[in-house]
Amino acid sequence: MSQVQTSRFNHKKYQSFQQSMPALKMENRQWPSNSITQAPQWCAVDLRDGNQALIEPMSVAQKQKMWNLMVKMGFKHIEVGFPSASQPDFDFVRWLIEENQIPEDVTIQVLTQARDELIERTYQSLAGAERAIVHVYNSTSPVQREKVFGLDKQGIIDIAVRGAKKVQDEAKKYPMTTWTFEYSPESFSSTETDFAIEVCNAVINVWQPSADNKTIINLPATVECAGPNVFADQVETFCKGVNQRENIIISIHTHNDRGCAVAAAEMAILAGADRIEGTLMGNGERTGNMDLITMAMNLYSQGIDPEIDLSIADEVVATVEECTQIKTHPRHPWFGELVYTAFSGSHQDAIKKCLSVQRDDQQWDVAYLPIDPRDLGRDYQSVIRVNSQSGKGGVAYIMETGFGINLPRWMQIELSRAVQEYSVRHSCEVDNETIYKIFQQQFVQANQNFEQQYQVLGYEVHKQGEQESIQASICDGSVHGETQTIHGQGKGVISALSDGLHKTLGIDFQVQHFDQIALSKGTNSQAMAFVQIKINNRKYMGVSEHQDIMTATINSVLAAINAYIDAVQ
Amino acid sequence: MSQVQTSRFNHKKYQSFQQSMPALKMENRQWPSNSITQAPQWCAVDLRDGNQALIEPMSVAQKQKMWNLMVKMGFKHIEVGFPSASQPDFDFVRWLIEENQIPEDVTIQVLTQARDELIERTYQSLAGAERAIVHVYNSTSPVQREKVFGLDKQGIIDIAVRGAKKVQDEAKKYPMTTWTFEYSPESFSSTETDFAIEVCNAVINVWQPSADNKTIINLPATVECAGPNVFADQVETFCKGVNQRENIIISIHTHNDRGCAVAAAEMAILAGADRIEGTLMGNGERTGNMDLITMAMNLYSQGIDPEIDLSIADEVVATVEECTQIKTHPRHPWFGELVYTAFSGSHQDAIKKCLSVQRDDQQWDVAYLPIDPRDLGRDYQSVIRVNSQSGKGGVAYIMETGFGINLPRWMQIELSRAVQEYSVRHSCEVDNETIYKIFQQQFVQANQNFEQQYQVLGYEVHKQGEQESIQASICDGSVHGETQTIHGQGKGVISALSDGLHKTLGIDFQVQHFDQIALSKGTNSQAMAFVQIKINNRKYMGVSEHQDIMTATINSVLAAINAYIDAVQ
Repeated sequence: MSQVQTSRFNHKKYQSFQQSMPALKMENRQWPSNSITQAPQWCAVDLRDGNQALIEPMSVAQKQKMWNLMVKMGFKHIEVGFPSASQPDFDFVRWLIEENQIPEDVTIQVLTQARDELIERTYQSLAGAERAIVHVYNSTSPVQREKVFGLDKQGIIDIAVRGAKKVQDEAKKYPMTTWTFEYSPESFSSTETDFAIEVCNAVINVWQPSADNKTIINLPATVECAGPNVFADQVETFCKGVNQRENIIISIHTHNDRGCAVAAAEMAILAGADRIEGTLMGNGERTGNMDLITMAMNLYSQGIDPEIDLSIADEVVATVEECTQIKTHPRHPWFGELVYTAFSGSHQDAIKKCLSVQRDDQQWDVAYLPIDPRDLGRDYQSVIRVNSQSGKGGVAYIMETGFGINLPRWMQIELSRAVQEYSVRHSCEVDNETIYKIFQQQFVQANQNFEQQYQVLGYEVHKQGEQESIQASICDGSVHGETQTIHGQGKGVISALSDGLHKTLGIDFQVQHFDQIALSKGTNSQAMAFVQIKINNRKYMGVSEHQDIMTATINSVLAAINAYIDAVQ
Repeated sequence: MSQVQTSRFNHKKYQSFQQSMPALKMENRQWPSNSITQAPQWCAVDLRDGNQALIEPMSVAQKQKMWNLMVKMGFKHIEVGFPSASQPDFDFVRWLIEENQIPEDVTIQVLTQARDELIERTYQSLAGAERAIVHVYNSTSPVQREKVFGLDKQGIIDIAVRGAKKVQDEAKKYPMTTWTFEYSPESFSSTETDFAIEVCNAVINVWQPSADNKTIINLPATVECAGPNVFADQVETFCKGVNQRENIIISIHTHNDRGCAVAAAEMAILAGADRIEGTLMGNGERTGNMDLITMAMNLYSQGIDPEIDLSIADEVVATVEECTQIKTHPRHPWFGELVYTAFSGSHQDAIKKCLSVQRDDQQWDVAYLPIDPRDLGRDYQSVIRVNSQSGKGGVAYIMETGFGINLPRWMQIELSRAVQEYSVRHSCEVDNETIYKIFQQQFVQANQNFEQQYQVLGYEVHKQGEQESIQASICDGSVHGETQTIHGQGKGVISALSDGLHKTLGIDFQVQHFDQIALSKGTNSQAMAFVQIKINNRKYMGVSEHQDIMTATINSVLAAINAYIDAVQ
């Protein structure tokens, strides 16, 4: 076994990028001395490159939700699909146009291969649009030329030129639309830069852009195959060599195979690029596309207006998770759940000292916190471990091993905090039983303490297609146990319940976290549901235990609402 | 609400790195023209920086497991703790030394602040070690000087020099150990580079390194606060300005706040650094440390020997997940579960064409697959979506909405593949009922088809502390239904079961994936367990449904083993 593995794992199978490509002559390299001083033009490609890389492509409802989020955040260029290759993409483009969903300052973009019938179909999908970007591409790298297409360089140029002409010709058939053309030499970063310039110049020669009608030339790192500095050299060389640079918008589209997609995009800006294509939280083929959130937040943290609204971090995370079915890594830059949490005593101490002298009218300057987490609706969380001397005495460990309760991470943090506050208030060490008591009192039994408030009496749940509907009888303790019936609909029970509570009780909340676990106490399996909601940008928690998972779920949400009512009364 | 958010989200609170720091004069900048040609010295700091950032610090057993993994992978420098600040770290260092756990070619490293009593305690922890690196640090950045320590530059130099002397003096008390000294100007990247040079030169002046006894100077980006190119400028400037460069090992320790920790480390190597500190899969404070896996795999993919064994990808992922309690992102570079999966038809087509002409004695050159996934014990997976025209017709969607079964992602991929094979074999479209039938036949009922093989009859599970023990009666159909009793122990049921099956049946397997779901069919809630195991580097799946979750769990593992027996018979 181990011998086989050793022979398989063999670096000699690969050659360096430098060996495989002609060296660029960088005699007067400029980009390392440049700085980024303003946001690039952003183009969000979640609905195309992101969607294409999902096991389960987005449903119509999910696409609409993603579109609405991107419009709300302020993206002005949004690639919405590959309509000639996918009927759902075609239908979505039609919906956008026919239902008048595109704001005046937003331009949709669609991708097509450089083939006649696909270009025709692409324009059919766009009929009636006020503005659109038609993005045409063909592959240019040696491996694509030689192994996939069996063509020489001229053959590749011919495909590009023919595609560019077809794009131009078809556009003339739809004179009511303002067209912008975009061309990508796919796998640009794996293509000899001089050849990429040659292909692009041939396309530019067809399109004849002007100051009023610029062409977008998009340079993809379809697969990230070298360091970001090598990519920057390629982009700088390209910018110098391309014709009519003044009439060209240089766009960049990086992937994250080497974990450096953001660095590559930033350095491409230093090297002269104007525009960045990427996705929210970096969803996309294989290791993902360049993450728009990380790059935009990087600008923000440097005092540069990112020109998109990133303050709705929790909404972005929730929508992306719902649409991609991929959980956000807890250490995802800027938006991960552990990013503003400090565990180390020396970090906590430094943060505390800095925060104590930080004034609102000053520039932010706090050790270990590159930005103020409140900008994103987050809190700084200092987590002091109970019994840290034992090395395995943390709250989560005690709850799991002592009481069989495997807390979700966010709840571990909340409980650690509650335990820590208890410890400070009572100036004492906190033993295991007390930790359990604090958990019960502050989270589980919070519900029972407010008997005058909401509890569920009964419910029915129906599922049809993607839609779940719920009907539940809620006992309202505040009016002497009067029963109210709520009706709600949504994708999933929580969403249906939120809808019903909002309509009947007039309470508007967003669910930040929801988790459920099975408790392994004896044979009689109990379920525990944990929820964190946000109302007016404040967090409220609810936990409920019941034999029936649905009752536990509903009561956990009601417990959180009760906590809110208790707080504002 | 929205107004409050808008005023909170305000880029003017921040200043650019360029504004906050004196500009470096980079008149003859070298690093952009350099290439990486060999692996750096690696130092894995999972047991210190990684562990420090966990909600639940590693238990003794987890630390041992992590240590064993790092030794097995071939790390030669391993930072094992902060023994003067943590009793568990102290105890772990003692265990390593007293139990003779440190191979001859491995050197342990421990961190300490530059304070007398902590340095003394640090040496106590290391008594009897053959070799050790004592890593001392103090903070040097303006925000730390002014807001945290209330000291001027000379005050910071004094702390560093006093600490360096103490480190040297204490070392003399333990002459049987070969000592290496390491100094970090903490927050180097946020420190004026000329001041960082001044502090480090003062420390070097105390230690007087030589060619035979080099000093390690470690340059941390404690918080990543500017682009990797700015960091490379700082490192190049430092390397030029530091005294006795020939006797100094320049080490780099980056964090990932801007998502560029790997790029920064790679460019620091271009700028002259020799050594890289990081963690497996990038666990660490906030957004994490530099990911050793990504950087080492980046080297590997360029034909450079990474000098650590990365072929055991699945073992690395499993161990890191167990020790950190953080799931690996499915798009994590190189090791994520979606990295070698292609969904796009044009990508699949290109990969197929390239693979068909790729010969074993050639350099690897396959579009969209930067390395051969088999090097890591992985497979390339092309996933063709069934009914992709509907846009919501994928296998996972049909199983969930049609049959209430929410498949884990890896199972979605396996089932998609099985459905696709069925479709090719029968040259037909696959309807929803057929998808369900394929799922049942190939995964769930695989067990019942092999009635001559293993099934569980009864079990008992006990939990004490971290240890779970299981006793189970297994019906062995291959010897006319004879009953065997297995006894196993481990952390968790699966681990205990594996142990028992290994000891009794002589079958050695690793669990790659395990998931369980509750099925919402009527009121009588059923559980379904999914397992994927690896035997001799081949994958076998088992799925089992039962009212009792434990029976489902055990049977799923037995089903996978039955699949293995069936395959090898």
